Amino acid sequence: MNTPVTVIGLGLMGKALAAALAHNGYPTTAWNRSDTAVPEAVTQLASAAESSPTMIVCLSTYEVMYEVLSTADLHGRTVINLTSGTPAEARKAAAWAAERGAAYLDGAIMAVPQMIGLPQAQLFYGGPKDLFESCAPMLRVFGGGTVHLAEDPGVPLLYDLALLAILYAAGQGLAHAQALVSTAGVSATEFQPYANAWLTHVIGPMASLENARAIDEGEHATDVSNINTNALAIGHVVRASRDAALPVDWLVAQQAQLEQAVADGYGSESATRLLDYLRKEMR
Amino acid sequence: MNTPVTVIGLGLMGKALAAALAHNGYPTTAWNRSDTAVPEAVTQLASAAESSPTMIVCLSTYEVMYEVLSTADLHGRTVINLTSGTPAEARKAAAWAAERGAAYLDGAIMAVPQMIGLPQAQLFYGGPKDLFESCAPMLRVFGGGTVHLAEDPGVPLLYDLALLAILYAAGQGLAHAQALVSTAGVSATEFQPYANAWLTHVIGPMASLENARAIDEGEHATDVSNINTNALAIGHVVRASRDAALPVDWLVAQQAQLEQAVADGYGSESATRLLDYLRKEMR
Ligand SMILES: NC(=O)c1ccc[n+]([C@@H]2O[C@H](COP(=O)([O-])OP(=O)(O)OC[C@H]3O[C@@H](n4cnc5c(N)ncnc54)[C@H](OP(=O)(O)O)[C@@H]3O)[C@@H](O)[C@H]2O)c1
Ligand SMILES: NC(=O)c1ccc[n+]([C@@H]2O[C@H](COP(=O)([O-])OP(=O)(O)OC[C@H]3O[C@@H](n4cnc5c(N)ncnc54)[C@H](OP(=O)(O)O)[C@@H]3O)[C@@H](O)[C@H]2O)c1
Repeated sequence: MNTPVTVIGLGLMGKALAAALAHNGYPTTAWNRSDTAVPEAVTQLASAAESSPTMIVCLSTYEVMYEVLSTADLHGRTVINLTSGTPAEARKAAAWAAERGAAYLDGAIMAVPQMIGLPQAQLFYGGPKDLFESCAPMLRVFGGGTVHLAEDPGVPLLYDLALLAILYAAGQGLAHAQALVSTAGVSATEFQPYANAWLTHVIGPMASLENARAIDEGEHATDVSNINTNALAIGHVVRASRDAALPVDWLVAQQAQLEQAVADGYGSESATRLLDYLRKEMR
Repeated sequence: MNTPVTVIGLGLMGKALAAALAHNGYPTTAWNRSDTAVPEAVTQLASAAESSPTMIVCLSTYEVMYEVLSTADLHGRTVINLTSGTPAEARKAAAWAAERGAAYLDGAIMAVPQMIGLPQAQLFYGGPKDLFESCAPMLRVFGGGTVHLAEDPGVPLLYDLALLAILYAAGQGLAHAQALVSTAGVSATEFQPYANAWLTHVIGPMASLENARAIDEGEHATDVSNINTNALAIGHVVRASRDAALPVDWLVAQQAQLEQAVADGYGSESATRLLDYLRKEMR
């Protein structure tokens, strides 16, 4: 006796969510602005107002959600919003839902539609813990990595965007590296085994528990690679990148942090110390 | 009957190199500016000029090497320089050695001293291939990942600095992510399992052979995450980072590339397309 559920938004992701629900025995209806192919065992509704008491929202933006749900009676309903946006947008949406008498969870999907339903699909949720617990059996059909992070509905998107920041940073670094080696006629394919080994064996282990503890405890002793060494090395990277006419602003910003840390007497400490410098820039 | 070898520079790394040579049966002498503890079976020389015909140089900078070797007779000797610097410095040093009648290899050590001698230690060499081949049995004592990359002596440091660029980029991204989640009171330790899984499962596989081939062949079709999606997502990262008063210049530079790619009609292609935009900035 699974609860009926409506998926609002049948884009690439909404379709994957609706299919996972129907496939796992949840009576599933769906609404989409335009007519679209609906997954097996899912019925497309004529209006969002006809929704079941539990709604999964997966639209392009928060603005679109406000527009689509403007005429729906949300009183007594549960809205689980998996639309991407910012933590501030998620918090505002939680307040908006509360005003309209709805229970609200915000979520972030760290997976592509093809991964929905698999054990390795990671989904973050925020909002009332008891609400999450009551919905959890249903939400787990979307992925094995279904977790409640915080009562604060902004936290799932905060984690999401933090992880994306690492992705964009690493992507920028990889493109920079490929452009750099190309100045000696080295192709991306020729460079690939070395880049791959480096990402796997050096970059991968960077977010170790040891480093995280060093940051939280302010204990930055190291006997491997210290700030002095890195300040020298980033200088070489900057000079070689300038020689190659590559943009270096992002490197220079980090070089300045490293050199400030040396000047402040932290040269023999680990680069985990640098987060303090970034935090100072936030004030 | 191993050839005698002299290590010039007994800093942290020079000591590890000398120890590996002596341990593997190479008659090893060494020179260092200041008196220092010398590894077992290594004899410290009074002057660099007394060096064996084969010299391994591992000093702070190329400038220091010129200073130290200014009075040494290099004619007929082999200089293998493992000092860090830029590709331009390596090429200049190769010309300088040729003028003085020395055979020259330039190298880059992608390992900390503790890793010297281990199978996983990666060392890159550039210069005449036949010279490398004749030295290879000796050089392999420094690590299992001993490779000759190119005749161009600048290439080892080019690879080195390219890999370091990825390291600094990823480090900047990780610090940014940790600072971002800290705005909701989330500690580095709390965030660690998610950052670690992301680095291992999403960032690690980024330098795949498939992506490298896409770049070299200019074939950027994708059915997973395209430029449109990423242009939207990086916008969220920028807005949330601004809300948190974090520096966003490095993100905005990449956002501009993504938005230009959308404007140029590449929205449905993979982000492997972005290297073209970086290359345009190089002209
Ligand atoms: N795809 C992924 O890999 C992925 C991964 C993680 C998170 N997400 C997030 O999931 C959400 C949906 O992504 P998606 O991939 O499903 O996107 P999509 O394929 O572009 O679908 C967008 C959905 O929003 C609807 N929509 C857009 N503008 C509208 C409007 N003005 N009024 C009514 N409906 C409107 C579309 O309706 P029509 O069909 O009528 O256009 C469609 O249902 C986004 O926030 C995305 O960031 C996606
Ligand atoms: N350590 C690593 O993890 C690592 C990894 C890869 C590459 N490397 C590279 O290897 C090279 C050496 O690194 P290291 O870790 O051995 O550095 P280090 O411990 O700081 O040693 C520096 C060496 O340079 C000598 N030196 C400095 N200035 C000098 C001068 N004016 N005249 C004569 N000698 C001078 C020092 O002699 P004194 O003992 O008299 O000061 C010492 O032998 C560097 O280019 C470094 O980037 C190091």
